Amino acid sequence: MQFELTKEYLEILRESIDNGRDSFLREELSDMHPADIAEIFDKLRIGETTYLFKLLEKEQSAEVMIELDESDREKLLSTLTSKEIAEQVIDNIDSDDAADVLSELSEEKQFEVISYITDDEQRSDIRDLLRYHEDTAGGIMAKELVKVKSTWTIARGIREMRKQAEGVDQVYSIYVTDEDDRLLGTLSLKKLLFSSSSIKTLIADIFEDQQMTYAYPDTSSEDCAQLMDKYDLVVMPVVDHDMKLIGRITIDDVVDVMKEEAEKDYQLASGISESVENDATVWLHTRSRLPWLLIALCGGLLVSKVIGLFEDELAKVAMLMIFIPLIAAMGGNVGVQSSAIVVQGLANKSVSMDNIFRRLLKEFAIACLNGIICAILLFTYTWFFLDSNALSYTVSISLFSVIVIAGLFGTIIPLVLNALKIDPALATGPFITTSNDLIGLSIYFFWAHQFFMVI
Amino acid sequence: MQFELTKEYLEILRESIDNGRDSFLREELSDMHPADIAEIFDKLRIGETTYLFKLLEKEQSAEVMIELDESDREKLLSTLTSKEIAEQVIDNIDSDDAADVLSELSEEKQFEVISYITDDEQRSDIRDLLRYHEDTAGGIMAKELVKVKSTWTIARGIREMRKQAEGVDQVYSIYVTDEDDRLLGTLSLKKLLFSSSSIKTLIADIFEDQQMTYAYPDTSSEDCAQLMDKYDLVVMPVVDHDMKLIGRITIDDVVDVMKEEAEKDYQLASGISESVENDATVWLHTRSRLPWLLIALCGGLLVSKVIGLFEDELAKVAMLMIFIPLIAAMGGNVGVQSSAIVVQGLANKSVSMDNIFRRLLKEFAIACLNGIICAILLFTYTWFFLDSNALSYTVSISLFSVIVIAGLFGTIIPLVLNALKIDPALATGPFITTSNDLIGLSIYFFWAHQFFMVI
Repeated sequence: MQFELTKEYLEILRESIDNGRDSFLREELSDMHPADIAEIFDKLRIGETTYLFKLLEKEQSAEVMIELDESDREKLLSTLTSKEIAEQVIDNIDSDDAADVLSELSEEKQFEVISYITDDEQRSDIRDLLRYHEDTAGGIMAKELVKVKSTWTIARGIREMRKQAEGVDQVYSIYVTDEDDRLLGTLSLKKLLFSSSSIKTLIADIFEDQQMTYAYPDTSSEDCAQLMDKYDLVVMPVVDHDMKLIGRITIDDVVDVMKEEAEKDYQLASGISESVENDATVWLHTRSRLPWLLIALCGGLLVSKVIGLFEDELAKVAMLMIFIPLIAAMGGNVGVQSSAIVVQGLANKSVSMDNIFRRLLKEFAIACLNGIICAILLFTYTWFFLDSNALSYTVSISLFSVIVIAGLFGTIIPLVLNALKIDPALATGPFITTSNDLIGLSIYFFWAHQFFMVI
Repeated sequence: MQFELTKEYLEILRESIDNGRDSFLREELSDMHPADIAEIFDKLRIGETTYLFKLLEKEQSAEVMIELDESDREKLLSTLTSKEIAEQVIDNIDSDDAADVLSELSEEKQFEVISYITDDEQRSDIRDLLRYHEDTAGGIMAKELVKVKSTWTIARGIREMRKQAEGVDQVYSIYVTDEDDRLLGTLSLKKLLFSSSSIKTLIADIFEDQQMTYAYPDTSSEDCAQLMDKYDLVVMPVVDHDMKLIGRITIDDVVDVMKEEAEKDYQLASGISESVENDATVWLHTRSRLPWLLIALCGGLLVSKVIGLFEDELAKVAMLMIFIPLIAAMGGNVGVQSSAIVVQGLANKSVSMDNIFRRLLKEFAIACLNGIICAILLFTYTWFFLDSNALSYTVSISLFSVIVIAGLFGTIIPLVLNALKIDPALATGPFITTSNDLIGLSIYFFWAHQFFMVI
């Protein structure tokens, strides 16, 4: 059904490269989708990649360059001169992709490449886009779009669009502006093509100006994603603060934003601070994990201090000690569970600050249910296998309290972080596990004190 | 810039509902986007929601029904008769949305509603769609699409499309089929509108048959998402196994799939088994978390057994005990970190079974780096604050070994799960934390034995 990259096929390509069967390779690559070629490049050595790259047509090689993942692209770009990058790649892709590619180059290389761009409009567009931060609408928008003036007739509109459309590979909707280029609304190709109105009709009479959704260049790319998702948009216009139309964001860019967001949250929750690509260097991976391990280490030392305080007593009632990891671990797990739900709720806006109390009440109920069930099980176990009532009471009641408190704690932390404008996903990381270790143990020793009177 | 739902505005609506200011409310709602109305409904009581719902026009009320989240929709649907559901909702939405709405109803209610559908084509389309599993292409595809035969002239094509397009709210691309309805390729509206070819030209001469990407009804919705993402598609055709065109999948459906996927993984990783909506019942929340807590509980009991074995020895060297939670916690954290990276790598296909060895080697390097750093810190701490060389050696060397082993373990588990066709995201859950507790302690006691000779 679709392209399926097999080991065998890779081998065939490798051989053909070694034996310089260019015509065969050209043949193979010519009607392959750029995304598939990028997939092949990802599996080949840089030498082989550059060899194949040289065999591609300009158009195609540019497309492939966009589809490659960052590290592969970086390697490939480093084998090209600024002139080659400008003429083979930048000149043949949309301004937004061009800006993305350039933004990965060094300052001076950027400057060099831009100077080699032959298409003046493309050059100024790119200069323009490079000014915006990559996490904003300006950073993900493209300059290419099709627009008509409301004062034109359909006939003229179509004439003008023909010209514009050449520069745009995907036309989703046509933007309608006033004489001063201010956005008034959109005109769907469907309407234009299938409307029975004569070609003499003014565009002003057929375009839609209802419920227009748009972004400003400084709107965060996350907000753009949320807007386009909420309103099921495939493309969204970007306007400056005088409503002047300056670009458009397409769904594919926004999908990438969503995926990065999800990955970042997932990594944060797993205790990986800076989002790292899978093929990042060992050092980068280490650096992204170490901070959390150090936090956990300090937490562990604190825990050891707490236990240390009760060392002699624990020595007296040695049995107490064997349940320390259990209590600590359960607290951590419950905390992560309840904070994960809040983090997601905040992400999809189903949790807001104004229903906190209801949410806490709910978490309390859930925690109580889980707590009772686990506590009863633990009580039964200890009752039958360890003949110390005091111990059975201590561990089961401690477990219950830990589960309830960790549940509430796990709900509050992300809400607080969010209120402090810190990414709440941090909460589900080792952060909460560690702090719950501490809380759990204190509770444990408190109850032990009640039941043994030794501590 | 966009619609912003404020407390004040909600209050105004509430009041107007209480005082039955219908004309005002109609006015307010009439030019509001369905998604915004859904947002309002989400904040209102069911009584108020139904009141407003009755004020909407058919078209609009149908759209709103789709935009509502499941629990809100369920409540609202329960206030409508089967006849109302059929005429007000189902008759006015695309077949895929209609099928989604129906699939949330009880068997007999479904049957009733379908019997009330006035549009025969819609009825048969929906019956058709309800047969597919919701996690397949068939389950997310819509039947509405615009298709032309390659043997037609552009002129006839446009005539026929006009008719078809009425039933389709968004036309992204037009499908070209042969006489037997087999998919041959696509025809972009852009090309149709801007191609200079005369209207006498055959569609066969202008349509694109290159690099067609399509799905079968039984293709998993996840694979559909991956395909549309990889090839930057806004819409993808669905064909049966004779290549007969049977539907189309649009990007908005696929974006939802991606989001659900991400949420599911995130929840699995946080120890929440079945994906639960934020507003699910307390019982549902409890049920989704309990399994993990029980696993963790058993793990904890196992840990306690292990410690129990060394109880007397630990009593002798009580200091050993205070670092048990630290060792256990660090193992858990490292394990989660490294498995998270693998899980993501598997998700975005950058990790495959054939580069396992390289990946393990890399994780080994990362773990060694982190391990050495943490171990040195811990050694220095214990060296200065606890005057027992044996203890310093034990804890620091244990910590190092635990970090390395947990790192490798965390890498292997998700790969194994994946090979067993189990969702690897399971690995990053309490599952790995607990098993690492055990491994960590065993290592700890092993080294303690070496350095103290008491165990």
